[in-house]
Amino acid sequence: MGLFSKDIQTMEDLLVHGLQDIYYAENQIVNALPKLIDKATNRDLTKGLKDHLEETKKQIERLEQVFKKLDQKAQGTKCPAIDGLIAEADDVAAEVADKEVLDAAIVGSAQAVEHYEICRYGTLIAWAQALGHDDIVRALNTNLNEEKAADKKLSTVAQRKGVNRKAAS
Amino acid sequence: MGLFSKDIQTMEDLLVHGLQDIYYAENQIVNALPKLIDKATNRDLTKGLKDHLEETKKQIERLEQVFKKLDQKAQGTKCPAIDGLIAEADDVAAEVADKEVLDAAIVGSAQAVEHYEICRYGTLIAWAQALGHDDIVRALNTNLNEEKAADKKLSTVAQRKGVNRKAAS
Repeated sequence: MGLFSKDIQTMEDLLVHGLQDIYYAENQIVNALPKLIDKATNRDLTKGLKDHLEETKKQIERLEQVFKKLDQKAQGTKCPAIDGLIAEADDVAAEVADKEVLDAAIVGSAQAVEHYEICRYGTLIAWAQALGHDDIVRALNTNLNEEKAADKKLSTVAQRKGVNRKAAS
Repeated sequence: MGLFSKDIQTMEDLLVHGLQDIYYAENQIVNALPKLIDKATNRDLTKGLKDHLEETKKQIERLEQVFKKLDQKAQGTKCPAIDGLIAEADDVAAEVADKEVLDAAIVGSAQAVEHYEICRYGTLIAWAQALGHDDIVRALNTNLNEEKAADKKLSTVAQRKGVNRKAAS
């Protein structure tokens, strides 16, 4: 970003900036997920995180197609929000002594990341619609729906699959 | 947080840590919202943000009661996630030249903050329930429902009240 100039002039610029933000975020998530997977012990949790890692790689490809459709280079822009979310996930994980409590903490951290993405995709879809970019809305919607499903699965792992109950006992 | 020790031993510790995280976040939001309000021009948007600032102050009081019920001192713990979300809101706002595009950007930033809170309160409620702390669930649910309502209002401002349409035209 420019230090001495305002680089976002139009709504189109804002949309591209938002896409660069989520592109950076998805790539950071691909780097961060293996560390969380290593730390998790609950089988449903590790499987869920592994599945989502593969899903995230495909989401990145989908974003690359979105950039292409907009005649833009696929590139990220520094996103302090996802950096903060990942730093917090690492900080909390480093603080937790008990394995079962750690699983509960990892679910919480992963859901914070999912919610960030759910929100950003929702905003990007609204912006793309306002600009009449119907051609990219479908791809963004696919990513959004995958994030929502991943978030729901994490809630199931925490509540119905017993991660929270075991951590609390 | 301890640099050389793992401070979170139990699920109860994790719950208290999560409450300190959201307490810090709510206080940072009270500091950050006036800057966003100053930058916004759309009347529905500024009113929505002002209303939410007052709501946030009451949410902080509610969290203080939650700490009291758990016999804990009301205090925050550094939360890199909210710091990142606020830094990103400031960065993007500084980049946008056009007032109407800036309004659209502010809605997006505010919704990212709302989603962070929605997610954290959801997690805290699940943890409190697993620990049998039914006495604090009601207060956390009230905060959660206010965040969800604030997020919906922002979507309405962006889409039905024309912020995105004006920014795109």
